[in-house]
Amino acid sequence: MNTLKNDLLLRTLRGEKTERTPVWMMRQAGRYLPDYRILREKYSFFERCQTPELATEITIQPVEQIGVDAAIIFSDILVVPQAMGMEVQMVESKGPLLPDPIKGMADLNRLALPDVEEKLGYVFDALRLTKKTLAGRVPLIGFAGAPWTLLCYMVQGKGSKTFDEAKAFCYTQPEAAHRLLQMITDTTIAYLRGQAAAGADVVQIFDSWGGLLGPEDFEQLSLKYIRQIVAALKDEVLTIVFAKGAWHSLEGMAATGANGLGIDWCIRPQMARKLAGPTVALQGNFDPAKLLSPIPVIEREVRAMLDDFTGGPGRNAGAHGYIANLGHGILPNVPVEHALAFVETVKNYQYEPAR
Amino acid sequence: MNTLKNDLLLRTLRGEKTERTPVWMMRQAGRYLPDYRILREKYSFFERCQTPELATEITIQPVEQIGVDAAIIFSDILVVPQAMGMEVQMVESKGPLLPDPIKGMADLNRLALPDVEEKLGYVFDALRLTKKTLAGRVPLIGFAGAPWTLLCYMVQGKGSKTFDEAKAFCYTQPEAAHRLLQMITDTTIAYLRGQAAAGADVVQIFDSWGGLLGPEDFEQLSLKYIRQIVAALKDEVLTIVFAKGAWHSLEGMAATGANGLGIDWCIRPQMARKLAGPTVALQGNFDPAKLLSPIPVIEREVRAMLDDFTGGPGRNAGAHGYIANLGHGILPNVPVEHALAFVETVKNYQYEPAR
Repeated sequence: MNTLKNDLLLRTLRGEKTERTPVWMMRQAGRYLPDYRILREKYSFFERCQTPELATEITIQPVEQIGVDAAIIFSDILVVPQAMGMEVQMVESKGPLLPDPIKGMADLNRLALPDVEEKLGYVFDALRLTKKTLAGRVPLIGFAGAPWTLLCYMVQGKGSKTFDEAKAFCYTQPEAAHRLLQMITDTTIAYLRGQAAAGADVVQIFDSWGGLLGPEDFEQLSLKYIRQIVAALKDEVLTIVFAKGAWHSLEGMAATGANGLGIDWCIRPQMARKLAGPTVALQGNFDPAKLLSPIPVIEREVRAMLDDFTGGPGRNAGAHGYIANLGHGILPNVPVEHALAFVETVKNYQYEPAR
Repeated sequence: MNTLKNDLLLRTLRGEKTERTPVWMMRQAGRYLPDYRILREKYSFFERCQTPELATEITIQPVEQIGVDAAIIFSDILVVPQAMGMEVQMVESKGPLLPDPIKGMADLNRLALPDVEEKLGYVFDALRLTKKTLAGRVPLIGFAGAPWTLLCYMVQGKGSKTFDEAKAFCYTQPEAAHRLLQMITDTTIAYLRGQAAAGADVVQIFDSWGGLLGPEDFEQLSLKYIRQIVAALKDEVLTIVFAKGAWHSLEGMAATGANGLGIDWCIRPQMARKLAGPTVALQGNFDPAKLLSPIPVIEREVRAMLDDFTGGPGRNAGAHGYIANLGHGILPNVPVEHALAFVETVKNYQYEPAR
């Protein structure tokens, strides 16, 4: 890690001073990039994930083309249910389909706690090859879905606005739900440990559907398991927790000991800092749809966000505990030059007290 | 209004004391009721809306079958874009489709500020007939979509997880966006005024997609227009504003002068009260998916919600400024007896300090 040429992200997560705010974008290795779309024409989703050369190429595209301060390995959160024994189909531009979802306790017998080296070794291979190819240019981020979000897909079987079947499963069969969440948690710990061993400098836990739960359910069905994952990993690798929409539990998420917390765009930076406390790094929170604005608007809005997170009298310039990012994944219809404007504006930002 | 046999809702909205907490459910006149589904087999969506006898029958079903403390007129928020000149198709169980959406300033010429008596008189007729048929049993609620939520459909043309095209329209063509929002606002004021004249005791403004906007965008694209609507109506009818997910702006919504604010289930009652201030009534916030739980769980969770909103030492029993409701519309797959358990538990609730 000491050999990194750009370790802004790592120092920020460790609470150290940096010359400037690091920046990356969730889903930065993806559909808005023409070079990605070329590979998508030629290879299926799982071919792209499971072939280390392809995953590495896709992972590095935004580092070279957009100039982000971190790479995040190209993969998907649903590789974990797949490794546990479920069939997962990726229907291009329609989202995932798990044709044989979990309906009750008996279905859990179909699942295994996998040997992650055997079932997910291709992710570790991709991380090792990416790490080597990056040659210290920027840090490498690994990731996994939070247990609650994976349960959503494993029970509902596909995307949903409400994931009401997944919730009903938890409310009517709590014993089965918690057993499933624990199986996912144990698998995820082994998986992320393997990612760290394979070269991930940071791991991010994505709880994309955490915001569908009320505060008490979030504690019981999500945070309880995220806490186990962070506790198991915190001495091995830097951790970021991103539970979209779960602003009400920022305090609890900070108490997990995670080094960083992702926040979406529906919370004011000051409020997020107040709820999360002074020590954890905050990551976010640009509205992904705002990258569809004209470039001058993007530049203005990014500077306003940076003012809020880092600027202003009394703020300790250089140790803001802030990582610039979007509040959710970049949308596929964002022009590349708009993504570039986002990243460039962060890199060129200087707080100007008298704007 | 003085002749109502049950005016719990109205007194709560006026900040007066009541014997118990009033209760109703968003989308209570709808798909979870077998008698509704029978009518749905026979008549198209717009036949049900536009035939006062049908709308009245559907509106009164939950009053008679579930025992709610208010009726809400059966209609849809998209009758307003329709009255303004847009084609709106309701594709059963697929959601709305507006085949010719607004793409720019020129498209606004296709829209008119309608004569609401002429274009939406069927809603007023339905309100009058419902009012008469209710014969003072419970108050009658009218409603409209918030301008931002209507813009979402008018620009995107259909439902969406992100409404990114609607947002991009606002970001790239702000002048057209604000002109459209103002046209919707003006129409909505006339429409809700007509609803009040036709017998609505309360009107609720639904901003279903308010939570997709960050705090600053919510102020500019939504609250600014909701404020106009509430200001225009507050001397004529009681108002409730429900902007799902926009917890960050509860203070601003309270400042509109609305009598009640809806809240979803992703905020703790104490926090909602703190943000909204002491005077406005709060309405919510049971997770609709939780009605899929076993009945004893529903009963326990409803009582916990009531404890949080109304109970506890130091709370002024009888004047809580609280209306029990769901945090969003009831799901179609909720068993009728579960909806009944929700309503009954509220009606039978008594705070027990030593539970």
